[in-house]
Amino acid sequence: MSKRVDPQGSGEDRLIARHFRAIARHPGALGLSDDAALLTPPPGCDLVITTDGIIAGVHVFPDDPADAIARRALRVNLSDLAAKGANPAGFLLAVALPAGTTDEWLAAFTRGLDADAEQYGCPLLGGDTDRTPGPLQVSITAFGTLPTGSMVRRGGARPGDVLFVTGTVGDAALGLRLRKEPRAGASLTPTQRDHLLTRYLLPAPRNALAETLRAHASAALDISDGLAGDLAKLCRASGVTTKVETARVPLSDAARAFVEADPALLEHALTGGDDYEILAAVPAAKVEGFRAAARAVGVAVSEIGRVAAGDAPPQFIGPDRRPIAFGQPSYSHF
Amino acid sequence: MSKRVDPQGSGEDRLIARHFRAIARHPGALGLSDDAALLTPPPGCDLVITTDGIIAGVHVFPDDPADAIARRALRVNLSDLAAKGANPAGFLLAVALPAGTTDEWLAAFTRGLDADAEQYGCPLLGGDTDRTPGPLQVSITAFGTLPTGSMVRRGGARPGDVLFVTGTVGDAALGLRLRKEPRAGASLTPTQRDHLLTRYLLPAPRNALAETLRAHASAALDISDGLAGDLAKLCRASGVTTKVETARVPLSDAARAFVEADPALLEHALTGGDDYEILAAVPAAKVEGFRAAARAVGVAVSEIGRVAAGDAPPQFIGPDRRPIAFGQPSYSHF
Repeated sequence: MSKRVDPQGSGEDRLIARHFRAIARHPGALGLSDDAALLTPPPGCDLVITTDGIIAGVHVFPDDPADAIARRALRVNLSDLAAKGANPAGFLLAVALPAGTTDEWLAAFTRGLDADAEQYGCPLLGGDTDRTPGPLQVSITAFGTLPTGSMVRRGGARPGDVLFVTGTVGDAALGLRLRKEPRAGASLTPTQRDHLLTRYLLPAPRNALAETLRAHASAALDISDGLAGDLAKLCRASGVTTKVETARVPLSDAARAFVEADPALLEHALTGGDDYEILAAVPAAKVEGFRAAARAVGVAVSEIGRVAAGDAPPQFIGPDRRPIAFGQPSYSHF
Repeated sequence: MSKRVDPQGSGEDRLIARHFRAIARHPGALGLSDDAALLTPPPGCDLVITTDGIIAGVHVFPDDPADAIARRALRVNLSDLAAKGANPAGFLLAVALPAGTTDEWLAAFTRGLDADAEQYGCPLLGGDTDRTPGPLQVSITAFGTLPTGSMVRRGGARPGDVLFVTGTVGDAALGLRLRKEPRAGASLTPTQRDHLLTRYLLPAPRNALAETLRAHASAALDISDGLAGDLAKLCRASGVTTKVETARVPLSDAARAFVEADPALLEHALTGGDDYEILAAVPAAKVEGFRAAARAVGVAVSEIGRVAAGDAPPQFIGPDRRPIAFGQPSYSHF
């Protein structure tokens, strides 16, 4: 008797067929049945590529819901595309799964992934699955397209440009604080707690603003490592400086209540990571157009300062009119 | 006194500047100083995308040399591009580094990566670095280009096509056996041992054959999970079957000597992974052209069988003229 080669393929093939094939609807994904994916940007377009990963215990809590982990992994990449002015075109997924990962977990993971792939118009193109003796790791490479030469860079800010941030700053860092110290924020209402915790768990990338940024911004990046650190990156890349009055930094009601109860948390809100809002520099002549375009797509934008000549690191001016000394200016794993 | 935001950026920025910036020479890498990379395939070309990762302790030994780990991670992706007929265009690197990773290790890692990026014409475009509480993980996403619509698929083999493999099969699996059981292969010469160990540590992807495959092959994939398993994938995707006489499978002198000393190792050579040779189906009318083109680029190709109608899993016919029953037909982590 001969035992033949398994007609269903390897365990990895079966895992892909069971969980990922149904959500790979882009024709370039080739049904996840080939060794590579195909993607061709429209004529006259550049392809913008970004990659960002999540490691359980480092970027997310190991017991975060599987669908939220998947959505977060995709959204942090979508946020980079948004800041560069690119329209999502698709993504690759590389997952390293610890032993004991269940079918139920994977089903929830792909359900979350698929929901966001649909919502943001960014379909699964392909990927790689492995077992790991370490923690869960999810790496996503996302692709976007934009007219050739129109990518919004970090280094384009010029003196006189106006600095804007989208949405509100610091919610995610304060939400993380609540996750780590559930007894903190005793004065917050349940709604305020929920707001901060949700903003930490599930960022809301600003892809609606991509075209507006292409048309109006001289420089932009997404705030992933904290406003202070990412503002410093933008200034360094552009060879400029700035001063930001902290009173102008937009805080949500929940963040404001938390900071009022414990003023030391202001630094936390300005330097903690995971906002996934966009920081943009806009030339003065384009400010009104930028505001109008942002309003039209429903994204709140707040002016926080002006770009100035000079190479001094940016300063944050506190309520006492003096520069704030940050203990740890930017989130970093290193 | 105010302590300002660190003008040198975060630890991750410094790590990138110290180790990776110098090797990111592609203009689309933007000096690794932006949030995304830019890649634009030439007009009339598709972009072929593949991603494959390495986890220390799973795909490589944790004490493998850093430069070899880097080169292996890039080469397994280059091998996919080769099999699809694509010319390398660039890659993204995502690394998760365990605590204690030294500057020396990173310097050797980037040296190996740069050497292969140069050799294969596949420059670093961007990436992501993280610390991990788990083992070292290296994920590479590689990009290739080819004329629109010319990607060589898995599913194009038709009855009557001739099956070819490049180079020799099984060396890497036998090299891995030697790594795991240093006392095995006592009858091998030092040169034979070195050959097998090197073939395991450092695959030699067949990118030289990409254009030849586009011009002549009806189907192809690279042999990463073992000839038996990958042949089954090609047949399944193409809806065909085949019988392969094991006597026709090309073995190196070293592999032949090892198998002669221990005939049970033949199965190991046919089903073990990591060959990174190419399995291709070539229509009968194109066989002579394929052979000549392969010869012209210096890649040895061996005919191992013929594609037949039917959906039975492929069979390997042993020296006794009977089908071989494989214990584990294909390498899989699942």
